[in-house]
Amino acid sequence: MTIITILDLLGTFVFAISGSLVARNREFDIFGALVVAFATALGGGTIRDLLIGVAPVGWMLDAKYLVAVIAGVGVAAFFSTILLKLRKTLFLFDTIGIGIFTLIGIQKALAQGLSPGVALMMGIVSAVFGGVVRDILCNEVPLIFRKEIYATACLAGGTIYLVGIHLGVNNTVAMVACMLLIIGIRLISVMKKIALPKI
Amino acid sequence: MTIITILDLLGTFVFAISGSLVARNREFDIFGALVVAFATALGGGTIRDLLIGVAPVGWMLDAKYLVAVIAGVGVAAFFSTILLKLRKTLFLFDTIGIGIFTLIGIQKALAQGLSPGVALMMGIVSAVFGGVVRDILCNEVPLIFRKEIYATACLAGGTIYLVGIHLGVNNTVAMVACMLLIIGIRLISVMKKIALPKI
Amino acid sequence: MTIITILDLLGTFVFAISGSLVARNREFDIFGALVVAFATALGGGTIRDLLIGVAPVGWMLDAKYLVAVIAGVGVAAFFSTILLKLRKTLFLFDTIGIGIFTLIGIQKALAQGLSPGVALMMGIVSAVFGGVVRDILCNEVPLIFRKEIYATACLAGGTIYLVGIHLGVNNTVAMVACMLLIIGIRLISVMKKIALPKI
Repeated sequence: MTIITILDLLGTFVFAISGSLVARNREFDIFGALVVAFATALGGGTIRDLLIGVAPVGWMLDAKYLVAVIAGVGVAAFFSTILLKLRKTLFLFDTIGIGIFTLIGIQKALAQGLSPGVALMMGIVSAVFGGVVRDILCNEVPLIFRKEIYATACLAGGTIYLVGIHLGVNNTVAMVACMLLIIGIRLISVMKKIALPKI
Repeated sequence: MTIITILDLLGTFVFAISGSLVARNREFDIFGALVVAFATALGGGTIRDLLIGVAPVGWMLDAKYLVAVIAGVGVAAFFSTILLKLRKTLFLFDTIGIGIFTLIGIQKALAQGLSPGVALMMGIVSAVFGGVVRDILCNEVPLIFRKEIYATACLAGGTIYLVGIHLGVNNTVAMVACMLLIIGIRLISVMKKIALPKI
Repeated sequence: MTIITILDLLGTFVFAISGSLVARNREFDIFGALVVAFATALGGGTIRDLLIGVAPVGWMLDAKYLVAVIAGVGVAAFFSTILLKLRKTLFLFDTIGIGIFTLIGIQKALAQGLSPGVALMMGIVSAVFGGVVRDILCNEVPLIFRKEIYATACLAGGTIYLVGIHLGVNNTVAMVACMLLIIGIRLISVMKKIALPKI
């Protein structure tokens, strides 16, 4: 496994935990928790794959992603007190997940021959639409429409990456720059409680 | 028409009736009832086909499914008093529909070369996601996240089927075993009011 | 650009404005407004493309559609007082948009080799499901399930078009008849406050 696959699985696992915790707050049963965890962790990538014409969608061909989701639900079900103590670690992994999902989304869209602008959109979709699907399944207005510089961080990081590779920067360097920017913007915006202006 | 097609159409028809009755409770107009009936009856199979890469989706190529949905809406609109008397019959056909949808979902996924685990998921998606789409369209938290051993019945029945064909059991025998298990679990769980534990 | 493309882009632009105004009423941030505008303007066509097996979906291959959506959001954000004065013009363009979306949906489905009945459905999906997705994103029961002869206008116009080309009528004539019928039905139904009967 490459470092990207490992981070991707880690992001999937942490997103599944966060989805499960939402399901627990709603008093869903185990099936509901699995669906919500699944949607949170793999929903963004699924929508991206459908839109760009990749089917069967990615996670169907690699059982590791299903294992990561089920492991996330299991951890959320049995180790909730430990999770409370690890909140900062989880937040960090969650942010790493967003960065990786953005990068993978961009790369998959470019590999389909789509334009950089559309690839950037697909990066953002990969990172944030899992949360949108989660909120719709829970019958709530998607959180991301109201709060936090979340999609903006993906937009900035993805743009850096695309500009980087366009200028011939080494791919790994461009990826690291993208990740650092996404993580940095998200950390700062959460610490300083910055949000996007309303329309 | 094979017996499977007939049961599939019967399931589609009964799901369309149940979707129409939900639309009626919400005071939707005829167009809304058609959409909700459609989503309930064919939504699960549509999502499955999109995820596994079958498009145009199945019902587009066989007008019988559209006819079954429209017939279900018509029956729900004009014969509601009779339907009340037939409640137990409808429940039975609904349960048969779930069993058939599970089987067809599994078989279609296997035919796409997907793994048994993913095929099992696609069987469950075929059977229960029509109801999830219906509840989202009606702006409600999906019922199935909170109540009834519904997906669990599909999981058990689908597992029996997959284990059966893996062990070389005759396909028809494995299908009958799957159907009986799904119908049996659902009947018992409704009679005894068993539900999945909360997460 | 053909006249059809121009009308299609105009429809996309006006649908994006209407989506943005809904997002503004919900106090969404700019990202939320972009997503809702996008879903309203391009959601119907996206669902159609996925169902009939066209991926990457249409707007990914033509940047003009993205520009039309972003322009719509910009206009909604900065010129809201002017928009209030132009309400009747916007309503007219919105209705033109519905007509064009219906026609394009039918033509794309026919080009995929689908039956006239399914093509008619895909025309209606193209025209009205953007609004359904918008309402789901805003956590509301889709407006169209309760109000206005909207889908019915598309049904009537689409039927005229299909009957026309079946009878060998010139394609342009059939398209104009379709547009006029959709615009006419919608105008009359809004003026006379006609709605579909409830189920």
